[in-house]
Amino acid sequence: MLKSNFQGFIGAESDYKDANVVIYGAPFDSTTSFRPGARFGPAAIRNESFGIETYSPYQDKDLTDYNIFDYGDIELPFGDTRRSLDMIKEVSAEIIKDNKIPVLLGGEHLVTLAQVEALKDKYEDFYIIHFDAHCDLRQEYLGTELSHAAVIRRCFDLLGKDRIFQFGIRSGDRPEFEFSALGNTYMNKFNFDTLDDIVAKLKGKKVYFTIDLDVLDTSVFSGTGTPEAGGVTWLDLLDAIKKVCTLDIIGIDMVELAPMLDASGSSTALACKTLRELLLAIS
Amino acid sequence: MLKSNFQGFIGAESDYKDANVVIYGAPFDSTTSFRPGARFGPAAIRNESFGIETYSPYQDKDLTDYNIFDYGDIELPFGDTRRSLDMIKEVSAEIIKDNKIPVLLGGEHLVTLAQVEALKDKYEDFYIIHFDAHCDLRQEYLGTELSHAAVIRRCFDLLGKDRIFQFGIRSGDRPEFEFSALGNTYMNKFNFDTLDDIVAKLKGKKVYFTIDLDVLDTSVFSGTGTPEAGGVTWLDLLDAIKKVCTLDIIGIDMVELAPMLDASGSSTALACKTLRELLLAIS
Amino acid sequence: MLKSNFQGFIGAESDYKDANVVIYGAPFDSTTSFRPGARFGPAAIRNESFGIETYSPYQDKDLTDYNIFDYGDIELPFGDTRRSLDMIKEVSAEIIKDNKIPVLLGGEHLVTLAQVEALKDKYEDFYIIHFDAHCDLRQEYLGTELSHAAVIRRCFDLLGKDRIFQFGIRSGDRPEFEFSALGNTYMNKFNFDTLDDIVAKLKGKKVYFTIDLDVLDTSVFSGTGTPEAGGVTWLDLLDAIKKVCTLDIIGIDMVELAPMLDASGSSTALACKTLRELLLAIS
Amino acid sequence: MLKSNFQGFIGAESDYKDANVVIYGAPFDSTTSFRPGARFGPAAIRNESFGIETYSPYQDKDLTDYNIFDYGDIELPFGDTRRSLDMIKEVSAEIIKDNKIPVLLGGEHLVTLAQVEALKDKYEDFYIIHFDAHCDLRQEYLGTELSHAAVIRRCFDLLGKDRIFQFGIRSGDRPEFEFSALGNTYMNKFNFDTLDDIVAKLKGKKVYFTIDLDVLDTSVFSGTGTPEAGGVTWLDLLDAIKKVCTLDIIGIDMVELAPMLDASGSSTALACKTLRELLLAIS
Amino acid sequence: MLKSNFQGFIGAESDYKDANVVIYGAPFDSTTSFRPGARFGPAAIRNESFGIETYSPYQDKDLTDYNIFDYGDIELPFGDTRRSLDMIKEVSAEIIKDNKIPVLLGGEHLVTLAQVEALKDKYEDFYIIHFDAHCDLRQEYLGTELSHAAVIRRCFDLLGKDRIFQFGIRSGDRPEFEFSALGNTYMNKFNFDTLDDIVAKLKGKKVYFTIDLDVLDTSVFSGTGTPEAGGVTWLDLLDAIKKVCTLDIIGIDMVELAPMLDASGSSTALACKTLRELLLAIS
Amino acid sequence: MLKSNFQGFIGAESDYKDANVVIYGAPFDSTTSFRPGARFGPAAIRNESFGIETYSPYQDKDLTDYNIFDYGDIELPFGDTRRSLDMIKEVSAEIIKDNKIPVLLGGEHLVTLAQVEALKDKYEDFYIIHFDAHCDLRQEYLGTELSHAAVIRRCFDLLGKDRIFQFGIRSGDRPEFEFSALGNTYMNKFNFDTLDDIVAKLKGKKVYFTIDLDVLDTSVFSGTGTPEAGGVTWLDLLDAIKKVCTLDIIGIDMVELAPMLDASGSSTALACKTLRELLLAIS
Repeated sequence: MLKSNFQGFIGAESDYKDANVVIYGAPFDSTTSFRPGARFGPAAIRNESFGIETYSPYQDKDLTDYNIFDYGDIELPFGDTRRSLDMIKEVSAEIIKDNKIPVLLGGEHLVTLAQVEALKDKYEDFYIIHFDAHCDLRQEYLGTELSHAAVIRRCFDLLGKDRIFQFGIRSGDRPEFEFSALGNTYMNKFNFDTLDDIVAKLKGKKVYFTIDLDVLDTSVFSGTGTPEAGGVTWLDLLDAIKKVCTLDIIGIDMVELAPMLDASGSSTALACKTLRELLLAIS
Repeated sequence: MLKSNFQGFIGAESDYKDANVVIYGAPFDSTTSFRPGARFGPAAIRNESFGIETYSPYQDKDLTDYNIFDYGDIELPFGDTRRSLDMIKEVSAEIIKDNKIPVLLGGEHLVTLAQVEALKDKYEDFYIIHFDAHCDLRQEYLGTELSHAAVIRRCFDLLGKDRIFQFGIRSGDRPEFEFSALGNTYMNKFNFDTLDDIVAKLKGKKVYFTIDLDVLDTSVFSGTGTPEAGGVTWLDLLDAIKKVCTLDIIGIDMVELAPMLDASGSSTALACKTLRELLLAIS
Repeated sequence: MLKSNFQGFIGAESDYKDANVVIYGAPFDSTTSFRPGARFGPAAIRNESFGIETYSPYQDKDLTDYNIFDYGDIELPFGDTRRSLDMIKEVSAEIIKDNKIPVLLGGEHLVTLAQVEALKDKYEDFYIIHFDAHCDLRQEYLGTELSHAAVIRRCFDLLGKDRIFQFGIRSGDRPEFEFSALGNTYMNKFNFDTLDDIVAKLKGKKVYFTIDLDVLDTSVFSGTGTPEAGGVTWLDLLDAIKKVCTLDIIGIDMVELAPMLDASGSSTALACKTLRELLLAIS
Repeated sequence: MLKSNFQGFIGAESDYKDANVVIYGAPFDSTTSFRPGARFGPAAIRNESFGIETYSPYQDKDLTDYNIFDYGDIELPFGDTRRSLDMIKEVSAEIIKDNKIPVLLGGEHLVTLAQVEALKDKYEDFYIIHFDAHCDLRQEYLGTELSHAAVIRRCFDLLGKDRIFQFGIRSGDRPEFEFSALGNTYMNKFNFDTLDDIVAKLKGKKVYFTIDLDVLDTSVFSGTGTPEAGGVTWLDLLDAIKKVCTLDIIGIDMVELAPMLDASGSSTALACKTLRELLLAIS
Repeated sequence: MLKSNFQGFIGAESDYKDANVVIYGAPFDSTTSFRPGARFGPAAIRNESFGIETYSPYQDKDLTDYNIFDYGDIELPFGDTRRSLDMIKEVSAEIIKDNKIPVLLGGEHLVTLAQVEALKDKYEDFYIIHFDAHCDLRQEYLGTELSHAAVIRRCFDLLGKDRIFQFGIRSGDRPEFEFSALGNTYMNKFNFDTLDDIVAKLKGKKVYFTIDLDVLDTSVFSGTGTPEAGGVTWLDLLDAIKKVCTLDIIGIDMVELAPMLDASGSSTALACKTLRELLLAIS
Repeated sequence: MLKSNFQGFIGAESDYKDANVVIYGAPFDSTTSFRPGARFGPAAIRNESFGIETYSPYQDKDLTDYNIFDYGDIELPFGDTRRSLDMIKEVSAEIIKDNKIPVLLGGEHLVTLAQVEALKDKYEDFYIIHFDAHCDLRQEYLGTELSHAAVIRRCFDLLGKDRIFQFGIRSGDRPEFEFSALGNTYMNKFNFDTLDDIVAKLKGKKVYFTIDLDVLDTSVFSGTGTPEAGGVTWLDLLDAIKKVCTLDIIGIDMVELAPMLDASGSSTALACKTLRELLLAIS
């Protein structure tokens, strides 16, 4: 008797019960101000993952040796931002409750807020490491506080000062940079030069890890709504991921792949490979 | 001394005061459930209008003989649906107050609601002629009542029974078709076969005219979020526009061009030409 | 506890046991001589099916009222043509054995041969109705008999004379047209003008129905390896499908969507809608 | 010993001496005002011709039965319009001198002028049949008389009144239509409705045949610089070509394919097929 | 009363009278020999500039603090090269006369000549710093001296020996490199290694700065007619721009963005960001 | 009398007899498992070569100074893998017999096997230097031994241990890396760090050189079926090519350009330039 053979991310073949890590997608991009399309990110990562291998020569590990579950995507109400966030938060909360690490695939960066809220309900005390081209520290953007351009500011509202460490930042308006410079967040502009210090400092702490893939240079990652020249290479990012994942990671997200914007498929392939390395690094 | 030579839609060279017709754009697509991109519609129509002529051999009229003003686009807060609608309504209301005909360029179809609300504040009694591939009659969609898929239902909520005349419809869920079949709206599925009758019936009435360009067959209009095969030809649409515009038109919108989805530029060129014919037909 | 929510074709939500109709994909295009890419057809149809509705206003039926199972895609060895065909035949044979109607999604047209072979093992006596732009009647093509350009000739080898009825044909080399003109197959060039007669003639017979979507005009279906101008409209095709599906259909395939070749997504959307109409017409 | 196997248009395998018909390309688009790219037309037609057959079921003829030579493309100095035209004229003149029919592939429409000049040096008295979406009757365009938008006016300057018959025209400025309406050219707007009459009238006369492929509807031909909705179908064009080619054709051009603008390849495939039908119709 | 809200480059909000710097576009690409499309560059930079910020974290400056005027684009007669150059020269001359710095956006590289001619009418004595992948030193190209491939040679004809400093060059024919090696121009092949020395040497001199964006590696800038692998990174370019702009800059151009060739939009986004940095560096 | 002016790769203007180096194309991609399209590689390299120069400033050499013949492409039977390989082998063998260096353009990587077989018939004893992102060391892939993913393993079967030197490898399954680690091949993962040593070691030996262009980073080479982030730059590759070509090269291939996947044309332009440098380095 035939069974459907639909598949999730390559190598994510565990059932939910046995899984230590749970991947899920939030295909949301309604607050994107420039070019939408990040909603198609999670499906593209899943579909195109069969172009990569489960084995990583960078870490000499194989996804098939770990217990990873892929839930698929949440069906979200486009245009109703708060309700979308609540639905993401609900799934995240269930994963967290079951003591698994949630790995959220965006979608635009605002989805991070939902997962940070869910974690905040469980953990009093944690830190955020944030890789991005953009500050995302606006108080509001185009009149709304629930915006991709304000998501880290909203996390700041939840966690408070000295909790957020930003790397690779190279775009924002002047007040955002000033907000950080006042000591509200730690910001390593342009690259990862001080990452070693921060990782050393956060040893033993609980850490949430949010990666906006546009931290990468546009040369390797053009498939994103707001491409910013002058970013890091993929090998830089891989190295940074391995360092961060030596910490006590309580949740992860990887956001802002807009696959249709890079018709060559390279951006999607890179996102697949990055997810593999992330999953292996925390396993 | 140099003056900036930025230009609006070709031939729309009147200033506001003298204009009888006002074009404005609402680059909004946040509730789009399938493929976003209609936000880029109004700018594309404006930019690419220089590929067409101001003269129409179909109507033997020239845009340069009429007084048309192009306002440009409203800057909208993506992700905050109600506030976006309010901002559109405000611009529309000002145009209406000044006794000019507002021509709204979407954006997704939900923007229609804002202009219908603005008109409802002035006119007690008017009708809607609706060209579309989709019913847009859902009570709610993905849990929200403010959705592109529910926009005509929201107009129905405002105007009531026997006010809405739908043409070209070929997609929807069963309850939408049943809602219409109960007599709530008039629906001519698939084509314009009964348009003459309806135009005759509405002679002397005030009429709002909303054109979702996906009423066209995908062969000529693939640059749209939800393309539906089996639609009308452009010559069918032109003929229908000329008929409808013999009525007392109090406002118009033309929505759902998503220019990036048709890289050939043909869909945008068609939208430009359709707008020219619309403007000439009501002038 | 979370369950994966991966989904097949919209509305195909039956399990295998209860299903009357089984959809499965054969992502194969290795013999394609001009432009490959049909391998991505079945996945695209499945993924993009959420842009259409389960309800058809053309037939006033809804997919959710029927029992349809979607198996997903077979993983095939590219470059090993005969083994690929054998693997397709094996899945097809299981569906046929269980008295369900197999609906095969290509992939290139050669996949038809595998399903016809499987049916031939069960039914001594059946007919083929073939919609296509191309004859596909070559004895061999580029030195191989197992070619997309020879698939109907291979079916002829299995079924013999007077069994194959071709419609919409508008491309081939001269010997192919001569082969048909000798009475080996029935051929209605360019359109469906004589379909009524053939349907009348085949009443009560078992019929296999193979649709190469390039029978459609390139205006509505440019996402295919070998586009041929001068084809039928989608409404022509819909009408023809409804006629053919009044017969005793023992199997179906729909082939040659190459989704990446039509970046607008219109060809894929059309294929989804055509599959919906096919499924409803035989249910 | 190996010989290079580079090939021209499919089936054009004669050498120059034996040929009755000579194909050559003029990859020129420097005066294109909207979107360039027609320069890539001739190479695309040649390269993609292997996707069609040499046999036409429409005319039951095969290219391999005729003597056709493909010269390839002239290398032209972009930006020097007059010199480019002179180089085209020189090749055309040599073909004409040798009593072969020149078939010029554009490039933009201005290239027609060079071939008409070459023919005028040989034939005192001939007529032009012109298929196009655009009048091309401007006295000048953007300040220059050598423009794609003025090419038929330049031909008029050479041939005089009552010599030019235009079909399918649906775009131009008002003075162009007025120029024709004054009796300077014959114009059948929008379609081919009066072609039979004109063909009857020109029986026995020498005729030059210029086809701007944008006469076609954008649904089948989006790969062109200035797409105009509302055009003819390919079957309409085929029918018209067969009628015109019953006349005494002294030269042909087919222009304005810009292959990169239609990434699906359908426009190029259509141009290949149209060229095949043209070559067969005059052979 | 509504006013049109069309906008120029982000942050360029001064009126002409108060401006120190004037941006204007020359949408010209008629001599482009390989792939045209640079004509769309200036409009794309203007339209897409809303995807970047007015603030630069690289220079800690904000465009809104300076007086910059955006004139828009000149409407040029494609195909008439010399007249196009004269029209560009006229606008440039007016800006120069008013003691403002002209910032010319191409278009192809030949437009540089017009602005250099205009500057030469005012300044007897100035130098050119030239960033490019290509020498552009041909005496003629395809038979014409007014070619993108000859533009620096034409500047040399105007300014004479020892005036032109070329960086990043990695393509040309042998005579071009020999022409430079004879001491006619200074050439730093492949990169900016000796830029510090040249900047030191030119301190106090008037300098014209021309940037062909294809000096960048194709990894970050694929949206150009003649992409050349092996170029500099964007951070290299930024660093070089900051150095050059410490000199007495009398005019700038930035050319050869062909936005349609990079459908991801990354090349256009990079050009926007580069223009921002240029404007800030000279302010 | 006109002669056809079709041309091969730029500067490859020798006839066969005088040539030292022979370029030929094998447009084959039937075993490609992920994204096909490499079949279009050789034609694209030939067509687009006119966008580069014959002169290299990197090596100060010019193609026009050497005797290079371009055969064009072999017409291969898609879907019949072994027969395709035999046809490639036959052409290669003829070139080898005539003491010319064969330069094979793929197509997918499996074509390498045909040329290695041809060389093995002549030379008992030679080595392979292999640049690639992928190991290509599978014993079989999807059930077939003749697969692009197994091609170097098949070469190993022919040549035996200690004969194959792999560079740049960053993808494969675990058994492939283990197979190499057992000493069967030499593998320098990720980059060219040990190339100098290997070149020194192979001085005086006969060497076959196979370049899978996906060894390059996806930033410069996205036009390939299986893009892998983290690769080498083009300047790295150029440097490595110059080193390898100091050895006694008996044959070369360059494979896996899939030009349609990088619509910007940058990948194709890079392949053209790489081929130029390869040809100059061995001349």
